Amino acid sequence: MDAKSPAINVTTGPLPSSRKVYTAGNIHPDIRVPMREIDLHETAGEPPVKVYDTSGPYSDPNAHIDINTGLEPIKRDWIIGRGDVEEYEGRSVKPEDNGGATGEALVTEFPNKRKPLRAKDGKAVTQLAYARAGIITPEMEYIAIRENIGREEAAKATRDGEDFGAEIPDFVTPEFVRDEIARGRAIIPSNINHPETEPQIIGRNFLVKINANIGNSAVTSSVSEEIDKMVWSIRWGSDTVMDLSTGRNIHNIREWIIRNSPVPIGTVPLYQALEKVNGIAEDLSWEVYRDTLIEQAEQGVDYFTIHAGVLLRYIPMTANRVTGIVSRGGAVMAKWCLAHHEENFLYTHFAEICEIMRTYDVAFSLGDGLRPGSLADANDEAQFAELETLGELTKIAWDRDVQVMIEGPGHVPMHKIKVNMEKQLKECDEAPFYTLGPLTTDIAPGYDHITSGIGAAMIGWYGCAMLCYVTPKEHLGLPDRDDVKVGVITYKIAAHAADLAKGHPGAQDRDDALSRARFEFRWEDQFNLGLDPETARDFHDKTLPKQAHKVAHFCSMCGPKFCSMKVSQDIRDEFSTQEKGMADKSKEFLDGGSEIYKETAAE
Amino acid sequence: MDAKSPAINVTTGPLPSSRKVYTAGNIHPDIRVPMREIDLHETAGEPPVKVYDTSGPYSDPNAHIDINTGLEPIKRDWIIGRGDVEEYEGRSVKPEDNGGATGEALVTEFPNKRKPLRAKDGKAVTQLAYARAGIITPEMEYIAIRENIGREEAAKATRDGEDFGAEIPDFVTPEFVRDEIARGRAIIPSNINHPETEPQIIGRNFLVKINANIGNSAVTSSVSEEIDKMVWSIRWGSDTVMDLSTGRNIHNIREWIIRNSPVPIGTVPLYQALEKVNGIAEDLSWEVYRDTLIEQAEQGVDYFTIHAGVLLRYIPMTANRVTGIVSRGGAVMAKWCLAHHEENFLYTHFAEICEIMRTYDVAFSLGDGLRPGSLADANDEAQFAELETLGELTKIAWDRDVQVMIEGPGHVPMHKIKVNMEKQLKECDEAPFYTLGPLTTDIAPGYDHITSGIGAAMIGWYGCAMLCYVTPKEHLGLPDRDDVKVGVITYKIAAHAADLAKGHPGAQDRDDALSRARFEFRWEDQFNLGLDPETARDFHDKTLPKQAHKVAHFCSMCGPKFCSMKVSQDIRDEFSTQEKGMADKSKEFLDGGSEIYKETAAE
Repeated sequence: MDAKSPAINVTTGPLPSSRKVYTAGNIHPDIRVPMREIDLHETAGEPPVKVYDTSGPYSDPNAHIDINTGLEPIKRDWIIGRGDVEEYEGRSVKPEDNGGATGEALVTEFPNKRKPLRAKDGKAVTQLAYARAGIITPEMEYIAIRENIGREEAAKATRDGEDFGAEIPDFVTPEFVRDEIARGRAIIPSNINHPETEPQIIGRNFLVKINANIGNSAVTSSVSEEIDKMVWSIRWGSDTVMDLSTGRNIHNIREWIIRNSPVPIGTVPLYQALEKVNGIAEDLSWEVYRDTLIEQAEQGVDYFTIHAGVLLRYIPMTANRVTGIVSRGGAVMAKWCLAHHEENFLYTHFAEICEIMRTYDVAFSLGDGLRPGSLADANDEAQFAELETLGELTKIAWDRDVQVMIEGPGHVPMHKIKVNMEKQLKECDEAPFYTLGPLTTDIAPGYDHITSGIGAAMIGWYGCAMLCYVTPKEHLGLPDRDDVKVGVITYKIAAHAADLAKGHPGAQDRDDALSRARFEFRWEDQFNLGLDPETARDFHDKTLPKQAHKVAHFCSMCGPKFCSMKVSQDIRDEFSTQEKGMADKSKEFLDGGSEIYKETAAE
Repeated sequence: MDAKSPAINVTTGPLPSSRKVYTAGNIHPDIRVPMREIDLHETAGEPPVKVYDTSGPYSDPNAHIDINTGLEPIKRDWIIGRGDVEEYEGRSVKPEDNGGATGEALVTEFPNKRKPLRAKDGKAVTQLAYARAGIITPEMEYIAIRENIGREEAAKATRDGEDFGAEIPDFVTPEFVRDEIARGRAIIPSNINHPETEPQIIGRNFLVKINANIGNSAVTSSVSEEIDKMVWSIRWGSDTVMDLSTGRNIHNIREWIIRNSPVPIGTVPLYQALEKVNGIAEDLSWEVYRDTLIEQAEQGVDYFTIHAGVLLRYIPMTANRVTGIVSRGGAVMAKWCLAHHEENFLYTHFAEICEIMRTYDVAFSLGDGLRPGSLADANDEAQFAELETLGELTKIAWDRDVQVMIEGPGHVPMHKIKVNMEKQLKECDEAPFYTLGPLTTDIAPGYDHITSGIGAAMIGWYGCAMLCYVTPKEHLGLPDRDDVKVGVITYKIAAHAADLAKGHPGAQDRDDALSRARFEFRWEDQFNLGLDPETARDFHDKTLPKQAHKVAHFCSMCGPKFCSMKVSQDIRDEFSTQEKGMADKSKEFLDGGSEIYKETAAE
């Protein structure tokens, strides 16, 4: 690996037994919504199972992948076609954008940069503005098709679930998407300078989404690793990716990531702004920050975490906390406020920030700079005071047609999770909530994907729209590729468990297909329908590696004689002869010399 | 490893920075209740953190461990001292007890067997009988001391939590333990023939417990592996262990396990009974089963899973299920009922079973033979019909002074979990509930410790008394040592998250100590206070291996400049000079040339 030019080394190709399929729109016939179809064994007698697919062209063998060119800008024609944007020269890259890296230490610039687009003077180019104007954009129809997987079939069945006041429709129409966006209850992160994204939506009445954080740190990791992690995380199901890079080369790394990302990219612009002032929080200024926002908006970042709710008067509220301020952005802003004894410049300049966001359709992810970093600090005065301010800022952003979601905690014991969701809905008028976990205990470093997966599933059920993953390395170090995968799979579990509990029509289809495969000993189908076919297969093969075992009516957990599924199938076979009396059945069963386990070639 | 004689190969010694301490009783001064004290770094200025310790003498460097002798029978004097038991010859080991294994294939008998004890004629030797008679046994006082860790200190603070109608006391008195046992709301699994156990309690008003399943299968694993897994699982926190061995050598393996286990051992006697009739369910009989119960009761099994609620009339209710009957015992009994067209002999002989249980104080774990094996089958007619029968059987057992807990599901989506707990409490008159997960989605084979850890945390919060672990290998194969550890840690997380949410006084002490260590960059303390110090340390050291980094005020996740905890500490330092005005503070801060990161030797 060369620090200068990233090696093209990402995972491509379909998942096992899977095909990429595309669906066209009705209103917008040129849209091609990607889905994954998992083929089942012929003995199943079932159609392929269609699943939501975040992996982008990387899993399509027909797609041409070239990291140096970037992905096809599938949305560019839609964006240009609306007639409200203009191409312009844009800001020049400055040495400080890459932390002053030069020579060998400087990551090569992405070779195929486009000129940036911006809104024409006086135009609002946000999905929120369009939605309010009654326009169903291609993005909205795309999303309706994408969210509808399985819903048509499911409409025939009785709905089940507890949605805590959400308004999940039987069927997602493009109009429903538009209405939810107009109402501010959902966002479509879609910077006009990131035309490579496959549109998706974040909102309580849609499928729960997950985010994976990547990014180098000053201590470790390289650009090619980060691009690989991005592709890797979406392969396993991440709906958005946040690039949290710090240190040098931030600008160039980000360009490589965005140009190759089919999912929305989020950042915390403050991290780069702080690098530009050499890490001295007190030296931050609105000018440096503003310049950074424009720099990143021109590159195509889809949402910005902005810690505008960390107000000077809230800082003393953290003084007696067990873990103080644990949000990096929150801590930096608190330090700035304190040093200058001035109000947070992100708050005082919020209207100007909105103008920038609106020019590119960057969505706010209003940062929870005062989120709790331990159970002891959960739901305290500082946390809730900030949340109230975020509610106030939400309305200011909405007034300016800017899309908004709200970040949430953190570390919260189970019994204090629900009130977080309820308060967020109330204070922020149902703007989407986006939480980090929450972790439900502090005592398991090394397993915080699990401590937080529990909280994430619960808050997703209660109404949280997007769950930011936590990896096993949380609190301990920078996640590697394996950690990213474990984090993503854990959060897919949490999000899916939430979708099931909320009663999304069709959400249980994949569970049911997998359960049928399990009952019928279609091992390959069981692996392939799972979130991680490779791991499932590896685990199975550790004790029963032979191909013959893939048709065996048992596994090594119970062995042949004790396989309840096998016995249960025998019982079911009995019941298939319904016309016979029970006494008859019993006789027949014994006469047949039925055994729990009939010897197979497998053993 | 030799199939005949198990190699003595178990993990011993204390966990990092931990010491074993023992507390004596007041009523019973001879009891020695073990706890683990975790020493903190001297800079913490804090006393050691005391935690519940299930690891037995294995973690005590002063204990002499000899697998061939077995553990010290610490309870034997208490049992004999009550004057209501008698030693007798006991049943002879028959070849079929070990599946007819001979020669090299036969696992050596445990060399130091004691003669079994049984109740004298007409005596009930159960903790339930004693409790009802108003007797506070040494077991009860032991448990009170054990459950009270941290409660004395916690009593000073305001209680917090949502316990859904549980009655968790501020302080656990021996009398409270007695009362809960008498009421049937808790059990102390304590076969008089397993005097090696350190008493513990399972009930809604006590700390949530977890169980680890071990056991060989016909396909794989050996006796020494199983003993090692038992010791390994309690090292990481398992409160009870179920030996689910099938295949040959069941009797001899079990003896080795029980003699070396300081935690209660559970079994499913049906598995061995089925082996005795060569795996032919139809050939099972009450006589074979009864003989197996006595065999295992004499060995010291503390609780039996008995599928007495699988009634003939419930079997047709499973015919249209997606996954039929997934309990091994349930499937076998269903097959037997169907073949004979007779009522389940475990149900028809239930009173006789109670007599045996009462003779040795074996507790019932009334099996949920019809639990759902997929979300599709959750909370269905079959499952709930069986639960009602288990309620009926609970009262019959209680009438005979036998302790009872009830097994529960399985696979249940989040919104259907709570009703399981509520119905169980109602039908079974608050007898303790003991569930397997539940798994909240079916789509993640390879990660079912996580899909189920979510459900386990929730049902634990709602009132479930013990959580049966699920390992990553669930549905795929027999768990190995690593799987056992991951399963146990995941379930410790779930149980602890539940304890916190229920508001057990003192439960948060360890979380708070760890959070303080985290905030103060006491890395070693952070590792040592965690559930798995080794993994936490390994993860940290992957990116920052040097010893100097153990005192660094950052980790590789955020790097030095972005460590929010560091910044937050700077802020806190500011606030420590409370008497000064805010303007002064600001000036001071800047004058001090404060930087977010002061260079250390670490980088």
